[in-house]
Amino acid sequence: MSAETGTGPRRHAGVDGDAAVRAYIAEHAGDFLTELKQWLAIPSISADPAHRGDVAASARWLAEHLRGTGFPVVEIWETAGAPAVYAEWPAADPQAPTALVYGHHDVQPADPPEAWHHPPFEPVERDGRLYGRGASDDKGQVLFHTLGLRAALAASGAAAPPVTLKLLVEGEEESGSPHFAPLLRSRLDRLACDVVVVSDTTMWAADVPSMCTGMRGLTDCEISLYGPDGDLHSGSFGGAVPNPAAAMARLLAGLHDDDGRVAVPGFYDDVVELTGAERELFGRLPFDEDAWLATAGSRAAAGEAGYTTLERVWARPTAEVNGVWGGYTGPGGKTIVPRSAHAKVSFRLVAHQEPGRIQRLFREHVERSVPPGLRAEVVFHGPGVRPCFSDIDAPEVRAARRAMERAFGTEVLFTREGGSGPEADLAEILAATLVFVAVGLDDDRIHAPNEKVEVDLLLKGAEAAAYLWSELAGARSGAG
Amino acid sequence: MSAETGTGPRRHAGVDGDAAVRAYIAEHAGDFLTELKQWLAIPSISADPAHRGDVAASARWLAEHLRGTGFPVVEIWETAGAPAVYAEWPAADPQAPTALVYGHHDVQPADPPEAWHHPPFEPVERDGRLYGRGASDDKGQVLFHTLGLRAALAASGAAAPPVTLKLLVEGEEESGSPHFAPLLRSRLDRLACDVVVVSDTTMWAADVPSMCTGMRGLTDCEISLYGPDGDLHSGSFGGAVPNPAAAMARLLAGLHDDDGRVAVPGFYDDVVELTGAERELFGRLPFDEDAWLATAGSRAAAGEAGYTTLERVWARPTAEVNGVWGGYTGPGGKTIVPRSAHAKVSFRLVAHQEPGRIQRLFREHVERSVPPGLRAEVVFHGPGVRPCFSDIDAPEVRAARRAMERAFGTEVLFTREGGSGPEADLAEILAATLVFVAVGLDDDRIHAPNEKVEVDLLLKGAEAAAYLWSELAGARSGAG
Repeated sequence: MSAETGTGPRRHAGVDGDAAVRAYIAEHAGDFLTELKQWLAIPSISADPAHRGDVAASARWLAEHLRGTGFPVVEIWETAGAPAVYAEWPAADPQAPTALVYGHHDVQPADPPEAWHHPPFEPVERDGRLYGRGASDDKGQVLFHTLGLRAALAASGAAAPPVTLKLLVEGEEESGSPHFAPLLRSRLDRLACDVVVVSDTTMWAADVPSMCTGMRGLTDCEISLYGPDGDLHSGSFGGAVPNPAAAMARLLAGLHDDDGRVAVPGFYDDVVELTGAERELFGRLPFDEDAWLATAGSRAAAGEAGYTTLERVWARPTAEVNGVWGGYTGPGGKTIVPRSAHAKVSFRLVAHQEPGRIQRLFREHVERSVPPGLRAEVVFHGPGVRPCFSDIDAPEVRAARRAMERAFGTEVLFTREGGSGPEADLAEILAATLVFVAVGLDDDRIHAPNEKVEVDLLLKGAEAAAYLWSELAGARSGAG
Repeated sequence: MSAETGTGPRRHAGVDGDAAVRAYIAEHAGDFLTELKQWLAIPSISADPAHRGDVAASARWLAEHLRGTGFPVVEIWETAGAPAVYAEWPAADPQAPTALVYGHHDVQPADPPEAWHHPPFEPVERDGRLYGRGASDDKGQVLFHTLGLRAALAASGAAAPPVTLKLLVEGEEESGSPHFAPLLRSRLDRLACDVVVVSDTTMWAADVPSMCTGMRGLTDCEISLYGPDGDLHSGSFGGAVPNPAAAMARLLAGLHDDDGRVAVPGFYDDVVELTGAERELFGRLPFDEDAWLATAGSRAAAGEAGYTTLERVWARPTAEVNGVWGGYTGPGGKTIVPRSAHAKVSFRLVAHQEPGRIQRLFREHVERSVPPGLRAEVVFHGPGVRPCFSDIDAPEVRAARRAMERAFGTEVLFTREGGSGPEADLAEILAATLVFVAVGLDDDRIHAPNEKVEVDLLLKGAEAAAYLWSELAGARSGAG
């Protein structure tokens, strides 16, 4: 059914492009899994200094693998932390767009080891699943790109991808990507691209393929209210001096109005509202709210009026009280007016809220809210994380959706994610459109014992990746 | 100037009653102070089990002293804790009213000893002050009664006081009087009285004599709100499930309305409002709010709208947040929806608020306020302390005020106290009117190193005590 052509990747002749891609992937699936298992065997735990050498070995393994795939440029980029791997394969056509694939080669710790039914770094296949730390998050999803690229080149017979293809696979994502934004800024010339393809998320379900189109940003702070110089006896002073704990309660209660909207003036100014099409597509996801509540261990859903639970966690900004403390917290009672009270508050942000502006608005809100006689301090933990967002009608998103739909043979829906990663930095610093092409599942147990990936989904990911570059090249030329 | 008459207390002849009382007190002040110092030398610290024997010795010393004063009945009443001393001296007239003097013979610990310029249990007189633990709180103020009684008997030539006089001097007041109410209930027949004279408080100032007419009661609780089974990631769930910390903030913020009034429905139903006369008399006290704020270490006064600071701490009920905690309280941020949140809340009560009713109202308020999906628990710490209150127009209060005014030679104003002691139990269980005859000062450093009492005020207290019984006997017969 197939014949080698020249020294490049093998080409399937005599079948249509998709069939050739599928055939290639089916033929090479075994080798692909063997290679992935080699990589998964390297315990590249970025959070653990004892595994620093393993993270470096993981980078070297990937670099070698990319060279073997055919990338003419492969480099290991050292950072102040763990190394990233960069690769580049220019398109034959100098006018072709440039796409950058983002992923990470570091993994979560595997504690507790006794909770794994197989050792976390001795990957095994069983019942169509590949078990091992990093199988889904993110080595499996990085590696499907090389299989997909090989398949695309084999199917098309081309010597280079139809876009200039770049890969940036960082080594500190599981440690909060502390050196990632500086790395992007220092390598802007090398990383320039039109679109960033992120393969580090999940789909709705194995039988409901979907693409993420946004991630909420985040900024969080600690608030302190200071009152009397020391705790006061409430018999002598209670009811006649301002109480920081009561004032904190009023401040925190004032974070939301009665409709569950964040009551910080200006908070919603820059929010991109959901479109009717997005809401309709979200609404078609088979969401089981009771199951979701059971997962949360919560007895009720609650939030901003007028939005569904999915819309609330994906597409609406929030203010959340993460912690609060002050005054007497020991056994029994102590009738004091406490000297101070403290709270941790975090804001989930959606496009185009700027963390810096939200920080300023909240500081001003606190200053306006603090009663006479109390002093407020608001300390934000760093600059925050920007939200990221892709328009579902953007040509790049539509192109990626077509690639996914060709691979899965069914309509691809849209999701978002409630949390945040380094993706917003990618979009912001590289000024590129984000598209999420990923095949993880929520039950892959990433960050937990017995992480796995569904092998058939991984191969569908490779297939989508095989179609992606020509779809993107066509979308750009069509749009340009 | 004086001559002994018979075997009873010496009688001053040829001068008016008050002058005779003054002369007697002046003549016996030295002996009185010598005896008081003996008593103060006994470290009757009820909170410290190592001083259990000293508390017993203190009771024995007082019993002996009361016998020497002439009380025909003197008993030491053992309790499950420290012993109380009881004494009784029947009036000659069986129709005479019965008065019970309340005080305590235990003292606060004297830590840290190095902060005392004289050892706490080696009392010394210096510059018109007597220094020593218990000098003001409460041995000095108990003992002025025996000097006063001797003076009254000497001046009148009577063999017995004009009222049936009872004394109950407990030994656990500084430990919260844990066995006092049961003692009262078990000895109701012996303790029956028409008026209770409490000598364990302070006056406004040395040159502004005053009488306390009320003490706020207290009930306090711990509130818990439980939400999800465990802390939730705010990226995945934030904004879509009820947050117990935010709900606690709303609950605590809802304790007060915008006027600083307690917003628990029914809370004010039983409150005895201040009369115009009381407010006018409070207003005549030379209150320096800036100095008070400096003492509090607070930058502002705040509280229920429409009331002065003194009215707020003395005569208005409050709800106070004593402590709050929940969720993440460590360094940095942790973006969770916490599983639970907790708070300590205390209510200061004024007559005739019943702690039990306030507890019920608050429980109902919490149940109504808790949002769907959260579970509330409210645990009150014991039955609470009733407020106590005396009408400034009650005959007993007017009689005591006349006695104080005769002693001090000036108008006596009224105060209240913001905190609570066992006095409400006395009033409630014995169903008697409370009057407060005391000469302590706020700067006596009770409960602190270098406790002192002003010797001249102590002697004024003895003088007021000397006049008190005939004033009370006259008031009762006038009122009856």
